Amino acid sequence: MKAAVLGYGTVGSGVVEVLQKNKEEISRKLQDEIEVKYILDLREFPGDPNENLVVHDYQTILDDEEVMIICETMGGVEPAYTFSKKALLKGKSVCTSNKELVAAHGPELIRIARENHCNYMFEASVGGGIPIIRPLNSSLTPEKIEGITGILNGTTNFILTKMRDEGADFNSVLKEAQDMGYAEKNPEADVEGHDAGRKIAILSSLMYGETVKYADVYTEGITKISPVDFELAKQAGYVIKLLAMSKANDGRPYAMVAPFLVSKANPLFAVDGVFNGILVRGNMLGNTMYYGAGAGKLPTASAVVSDVVDCARHKGVTISCNWLEKEKKMNGIEEVSRRFFVRFDADSKSDLEQLKELFSAEKVIESETDGFAFITKNMSEADYKMKAETVDCIKGMIRIEE
Amino acid sequence: MKAAVLGYGTVGSGVVEVLQKNKEEISRKLQDEIEVKYILDLREFPGDPNENLVVHDYQTILDDEEVMIICETMGGVEPAYTFSKKALLKGKSVCTSNKELVAAHGPELIRIARENHCNYMFEASVGGGIPIIRPLNSSLTPEKIEGITGILNGTTNFILTKMRDEGADFNSVLKEAQDMGYAEKNPEADVEGHDAGRKIAILSSLMYGETVKYADVYTEGITKISPVDFELAKQAGYVIKLLAMSKANDGRPYAMVAPFLVSKANPLFAVDGVFNGILVRGNMLGNTMYYGAGAGKLPTASAVVSDVVDCARHKGVTISCNWLEKEKKMNGIEEVSRRFFVRFDADSKSDLEQLKELFSAEKVIESETDGFAFITKNMSEADYKMKAETVDCIKGMIRIEE
Repeated sequence: MKAAVLGYGTVGSGVVEVLQKNKEEISRKLQDEIEVKYILDLREFPGDPNENLVVHDYQTILDDEEVMIICETMGGVEPAYTFSKKALLKGKSVCTSNKELVAAHGPELIRIARENHCNYMFEASVGGGIPIIRPLNSSLTPEKIEGITGILNGTTNFILTKMRDEGADFNSVLKEAQDMGYAEKNPEADVEGHDAGRKIAILSSLMYGETVKYADVYTEGITKISPVDFELAKQAGYVIKLLAMSKANDGRPYAMVAPFLVSKANPLFAVDGVFNGILVRGNMLGNTMYYGAGAGKLPTASAVVSDVVDCARHKGVTISCNWLEKEKKMNGIEEVSRRFFVRFDADSKSDLEQLKELFSAEKVIESETDGFAFITKNMSEADYKMKAETVDCIKGMIRIEE
Repeated sequence: MKAAVLGYGTVGSGVVEVLQKNKEEISRKLQDEIEVKYILDLREFPGDPNENLVVHDYQTILDDEEVMIICETMGGVEPAYTFSKKALLKGKSVCTSNKELVAAHGPELIRIARENHCNYMFEASVGGGIPIIRPLNSSLTPEKIEGITGILNGTTNFILTKMRDEGADFNSVLKEAQDMGYAEKNPEADVEGHDAGRKIAILSSLMYGETVKYADVYTEGITKISPVDFELAKQAGYVIKLLAMSKANDGRPYAMVAPFLVSKANPLFAVDGVFNGILVRGNMLGNTMYYGAGAGKLPTASAVVSDVVDCARHKGVTISCNWLEKEKKMNGIEEVSRRFFVRFDADSKSDLEQLKELFSAEKVIESETDGFAFITKNMSEADYKMKAETVDCIKGMIRIEE
């Protein structure tokens, strides 16, 4: 069984490494061998043990009838989209780690694969090495999924964990993460929640079987979280996590990404550092959680290779994937009710009683250094917003997920 | 697509409930309907909405060519074994929650299914509703699995969690668990670790692709754990969990079930109450964890139905399952090295220095009420045993898993 890898970067070279290092293991399970015949890259790799596999013209791969599986580890929408489509139209299966492309054109590529008796697979696009796409497609089939809530971005979870443990501020931890290679030089996609937003759009689409547009995911990042938020959250027994969530919400479905205070009772409470965790709630099963390395060369590559093995096992057969091109109508978050953590500086102390009454505050937490916060009663987002607009002393607000 | 359910007890009636309540959801994903045509039970169920489906003669089901999928939710080896075999020989797929039968005859039934172009599926036999069999068979295929460590028995985890939280002793919590229906009247299979042992034998077999015999799993239960163990463990930052583990251990593989002190760094630390958690370590991926309801009517039934849907999607095709009848040679635990928590009563205090030296103790923890304990340096099981036999004052020993 011959495969080709598009893009010999971090994930692409990881795919080749996993296939070569675990060759024996994979062959035992597959009862067949998978061999990388080509690596497509614009660069040359002199001295690399696989340098003789490198080609620069995609047509070579497309025209080779022996190549049945393409690993697309290029990232970005183009040329990955065109390359994937061309492969599928020739009946070659595509396994990708490219969440941007899956979020933008997933259902079309899934349909083209179906029409051409091959597969478009994307286990590596969400949660790195954590099996989550396959459980949703083939393990949780009896379930009506009521909600998916996840820590889906390792970079922001690393930053938030370090801010909590060291009492450091966002900018200095971000810089450290960049120096360590955990955060990009342009960190916007991570810290503003766009990356997590694309991933929850993909998971939401599998939840409903219809396409949830990334544009319909309400998104807030973590740049406004301050050390005093962590201090006050801790006093109240919470940690702060960037959650991506999608909830069926009794027929008024919504999806969002935002920082949340998470209580100890939540299985995501203990998901720290670069790890990811995904909590899926089914109507029969209750909660299941999937935990592991959410990014990184070998974990992500391992997920791509799991798809390669599945494609090899299903030659000429399309593996069931319930994701139609039809758009799923999502609601905004205005009517969603929850509790809010609202922070003020010390100057507002004199207005405490009025503020407490305005927000139906339940619990006041005082900082040792900088102001105070309280936790509101359950109220809708719209209600909170309306009230918050009547005062000008709020220093920070974080939603609460028990 | 017609199915039959064998045994209308807790899980069997749950299977019917899941198929009926989530009919629309399942049909959407499957693009076909699954209908329960027969329920096999010795009893009658007057007034039950499905009473007209009940039959008493298995031959009726076997002879009905419309029935392609059998849900075996009877438990016990016989007659479940004979019934399953007969169904598979007729090309009918079997989906089971019966870990006893899977541990005893799984690989034979898997072979018979393969020979007859149908499937023997057992997702519900380990971890209740948690997807773990399918991830091992189809998501972690690129991985060389180095170890599986799990909290696989909800009853004992419920008991240990309650002992920890309430400082209560084993017998009173066991009685409470029995009164609440969480523990059987004869609790031996749970509290002596046999149930977890069967489950880790199944997972170990999938790990190696060869049969790990339950008899080769070293097994200790939780009956000797006392409230003072929890008090001292907590002081040292540990919880006590009944772990089932299987480790490749550099070519000297072993599997065991025993109570362990588990540190906060371990993802299993926070798995409390009736929940199960399964940590799988792969050589490329590192750790992934799977968490959820490890037992219970609907979660277990949901896992059976996930297999039913998979069988319906694979009519006439055997889904890949790497588990041969060949026996895997396992090692005993004598040479396994780890740290030990060793407890003494207050009378031994005068011998503390000698004892510390004998066991290379690293850390002494004193109880407020009853004696003390220490944690040894890393040593082999054999070495520990030899030393323990030279003194007669040890009140308890629990192994440590960081």
